[in-house]
Amino acid sequence: MAGLVTLLTDFGTRDPYVGIMKAVMLSVSLDIRIVDVTHEVRPRDILHGAYLFKTAYRWFPKGAVHVAVVDPGVGTERRAVAFRAGGWTFVGPDNGVFSYVVRAETVEEAVEINNPDVMLRGIGDTFQGRDIFAPAAVLLAVGVPLAELGPPVDSLAAAADLEPREKDGALQAKIVHIDRFGNCITNVEHRHAALWSGVQVDVAGRKITGPARTYQDVPSGESLVLFGSSGHLEVAINCGNAAVEFGLDNGDILVVRSAP
Amino acid sequence: MAGLVTLLTDFGTRDPYVGIMKAVMLSVSLDIRIVDVTHEVRPRDILHGAYLFKTAYRWFPKGAVHVAVVDPGVGTERRAVAFRAGGWTFVGPDNGVFSYVVRAETVEEAVEINNPDVMLRGIGDTFQGRDIFAPAAVLLAVGVPLAELGPPVDSLAAAADLEPREKDGALQAKIVHIDRFGNCITNVEHRHAALWSGVQVDVAGRKITGPARTYQDVPSGESLVLFGSSGHLEVAINCGNAAVEFGLDNGDILVVRSAP
Amino acid sequence: MAGLVTLLTDFGTRDPYVGIMKAVMLSVSLDIRIVDVTHEVRPRDILHGAYLFKTAYRWFPKGAVHVAVVDPGVGTERRAVAFRAGGWTFVGPDNGVFSYVVRAETVEEAVEINNPDVMLRGIGDTFQGRDIFAPAAVLLAVGVPLAELGPPVDSLAAAADLEPREKDGALQAKIVHIDRFGNCITNVEHRHAALWSGVQVDVAGRKITGPARTYQDVPSGESLVLFGSSGHLEVAINCGNAAVEFGLDNGDILVVRSAP
Repeated sequence: MAGLVTLLTDFGTRDPYVGIMKAVMLSVSLDIRIVDVTHEVRPRDILHGAYLFKTAYRWFPKGAVHVAVVDPGVGTERRAVAFRAGGWTFVGPDNGVFSYVVRAETVEEAVEINNPDVMLRGIGDTFQGRDIFAPAAVLLAVGVPLAELGPPVDSLAAAADLEPREKDGALQAKIVHIDRFGNCITNVEHRHAALWSGVQVDVAGRKITGPARTYQDVPSGESLVLFGSSGHLEVAINCGNAAVEFGLDNGDILVVRSAP
Repeated sequence: MAGLVTLLTDFGTRDPYVGIMKAVMLSVSLDIRIVDVTHEVRPRDILHGAYLFKTAYRWFPKGAVHVAVVDPGVGTERRAVAFRAGGWTFVGPDNGVFSYVVRAETVEEAVEINNPDVMLRGIGDTFQGRDIFAPAAVLLAVGVPLAELGPPVDSLAAAADLEPREKDGALQAKIVHIDRFGNCITNVEHRHAALWSGVQVDVAGRKITGPARTYQDVPSGESLVLFGSSGHLEVAINCGNAAVEFGLDNGDILVVRSAP
Repeated sequence: MAGLVTLLTDFGTRDPYVGIMKAVMLSVSLDIRIVDVTHEVRPRDILHGAYLFKTAYRWFPKGAVHVAVVDPGVGTERRAVAFRAGGWTFVGPDNGVFSYVVRAETVEEAVEINNPDVMLRGIGDTFQGRDIFAPAAVLLAVGVPLAELGPPVDSLAAAADLEPREKDGALQAKIVHIDRFGNCITNVEHRHAALWSGVQVDVAGRKITGPARTYQDVPSGESLVLFGSSGHLEVAINCGNAAVEFGLDNGDILVVRSAP
């Protein structure tokens, strides 16, 4: 079976960076299959990448090699890492982009990628997706042992603001993602509200209660809150755009509390 | 031969929804090949999706399974369907996104997808692309009979405004798509003007006559009308952007009449 | 081994043009693998396409067939060409989009694609990516000799402004690409500054000297110049957006000179 490699980056598709990573991969081995998760992570936004990655990685077959490159610290001291957890292999910078994975899965083995024999060199220092992560991912996908990439590491970095902060009995929910439909997705998860009978979110001077089950639980044009397909609490407008309507953006804080 | 599955959605590529659909597909079977048609259908715009789908589906090899997900009614009573027509198989919501297919091809067999054994469940109700359409498409691509997905259906839904309306001997042409170059493509097709010696389109106070054969039939910067590569009448500016220049958008109506 | 075909176009991903090209390819042969380089070349901007193509093509395995379609002259007299150079095969319009390839590699064989037997016909004249380049690329990828596509050609077109102009001892650097991070990449390459001890770039009233080695060589928010991963001189802001900050766009001219 051909090895499966997935890609999540903040490179966008306007530049050929993603195509170049695929080129390097296919130059190492043609016996792989490459699937794009998304390349539209907000530039250098680690928490955004961590959230998008969380929603996607576990849907892939066990054995897949997941590459995530959101890397504001490229060229500095942060490590390049590879690790196995939950039946998958992960490759990327050690900066918190894998925070949700590390929290949800048991990390079985982790290494720093620093073996020069598995890297491209002499080109420049600014594109480790091409020079380090792409070749490492393919080697792992075709069966090279993790230990050949470099020495073991003991722990992996976590992203800031992974958990909503508590204040006065309410959660300070951070918007981690705004989807194509304008739904505003927060870092509040099912488990944060597990003991609540309902939720109330303060948005732009109004209080929205829920959670609803589907977007159509309210009339067209009305706002709602629900736990979306990723298990995260989101603010939405049925057939409308909540981000535009309420003037919300990534990083904004919403107050979430238990509703009676 | 590996089964071929195509994907057209309004999910965009900013979210990982498309990647997740592919993950589910590959978890069902690795013996498929997945090709993206486009994911930039305007959110919830069924006619836009139907038009884009029309231009693409027939170029694929017979046997391909086409998945189209433009689905404002997800989670409501509209059916999920799969059908065979013209040598291809089609999977998606029964809301008109396949209108042009149903009009052009003979539907040989159609079913509602409601067999719980072919769905993912227990996750949420808002992402049927992942939970229903992705697994159904792969099963069909690897040879599962249509009848195993659910009971037969007699007819399929049609989209509103598929045909231009007639008024005072002229056609009320609706803009169904604006392409990357700003060309404004309408729901008027070759056959609507088959008996005309020429066409005249009223745009922003001027009358453009044609059809031209190529964009270069007029000087750079000049407007023209032509039947584009999809067989639909479009308003364009050679080396310019007609949508910006004339202030046109999806859904706008242009008056089209026979020219002398 | 399946043939490898790469695609670079200015079609974007909003339209199904790229999906249709892939459909035609797969209808000719399923024994190919298709990789996207980028489809976000600025509409009709040949130099932009040539630059992006330059950065990507050489990373792919030898034997790959590279298709580039940036084609303001589609439907006019410009030729469709295919050629072999450096171990790869190239297919596209003869308008300069391959300028950097032709400059860097030895062209071994080149033909005009005009054999009607290798084209789709009768559809329209405006989509040669589908009707000419897609089928030609697949035929070449599965082993059809170049000579079957049409007669030999002696020379290939070059793009305007491939080289920066000299004026008063300084280089007039043209911005050929602005990447997702706002870095402004010019047509000045390493070799243009090979004899200089340093470079100075005049940008928005200030003088930036360098080159830096990585973006982090300056504090966050500070501007810098460096030779990026493509070997071209670029203006950047560490953790910022130089294009927005300095009001720069594709085609703008910056004065670059030797720094003491």
